Formats: sequence, structure tokens, C-alpha cells
Amino acid sequence: MTYLAKIYVTLKPAVSDPAGQTVLAALRRMGHESAQDARIGKYLEIRISGDAPDSVKAAVDQMCRELLSNPVIEDYRFDLEEIATP
Amino acid sequence: MTYLAKIYVTLKPAVSDPAGQTVLAALRRMGHESAQDARIGKYLEIRISGDAPDSVKAAVDQMCRELLSNPVIEDYRFDLEEIATP
Repeated sequence: MTYLAKIYVTLKPAVSDPAGQTVLAALRRMGHESAQDARIGKYLEIRISGDAPDSVKAAVDQMCRELLSNPVIEDYRFDLEEIATP
Repeated sequence: MTYLAKIYVTLKPAVSDPAGQTVLAALRRMGHESAQDARIGKYLEIRISGDAPDSVKAAVDQMCRELLSNPVIEDYRFDLEEIATP
């Protein structure tokens, strides 16, 4: 079976986000004064084959810990969905 | 009221993603041979004040079109949720 992992990597709340602050300033300069905060993270879609959802979930969790996120400054979460074999 | 817009910016399917291919190659080299494809996008959280959800939605849509995505190569979508005033 083939699964699609949708992975969200975000900065931990205590970590400052200069890129987000730049986006916020640009939005406000463009007239969006209602914007109050902006934080930028990563969104990854990984297609992965496997049998049991539990083992695929464990593999994706390992990918996130070892490569896709920096555990010192980032949090991650992901959803796993079964997709038709492409 | 304060809303949180969760914005997902992804490359259009026809656009090649060298960063994603690099991540895929790294995952496979690390033993995750079950990984078949990887695409990298952006995930933004924007806190925005407003009254009617419809007008906030329209503002976020405009932000996405004018600043947060490149409509030539990227798609975007977003969810809007009401959050407690911080």
C-alpha cells in the first residue's frame, strides 16, 4: 500500500522568527494592518510504501527526528493517509 | 475577534522540486527505501484580527496571492480558525 505523510515543521514558540517578522512587516506595509503575527514553517509531503500503518507511522516519525526537523528549535507533527497506488 | 490562518503553499505538481529530490535521496540513503517521493512546501501561521470570518478570509486570500505565494509555480490553500484573544 502507498501512504502520503503530510508533515508540518514549525519553530518552537520560544524561538524568534525573523523571516516571519519580515513577512508580517511586509503585510502591514501592504495595507493588512489586521495582521498581528506571522510564523513560517515547512510543509512536506512524503509518499511512502508500506503495509501496516503503525510501521509507516514509526518510519515517518524517525524521518522527522533524524532529518526533517531540528529538534533543538523545531516541533513537528504529521498526518498519514492511505492513497491509491500511483 | 482574533483568527489564526494556517496557510499551505505547495509547488504545482508539474514543477520540479530539486530540494524535495535531495531530501528523498537523503532519506533513502539513511535506510528509508520505502520513501518514494518528497515535495517541500511552506507552512505559515498568521494571526489576524477581524470581525466577520468572510472578510478575514478575503484578506488572507489576498495576502496569499500578493505576497505569500508565487502564482506561476505555486498553489496555496488555507484554513481559518477562531482563537481566543491572546
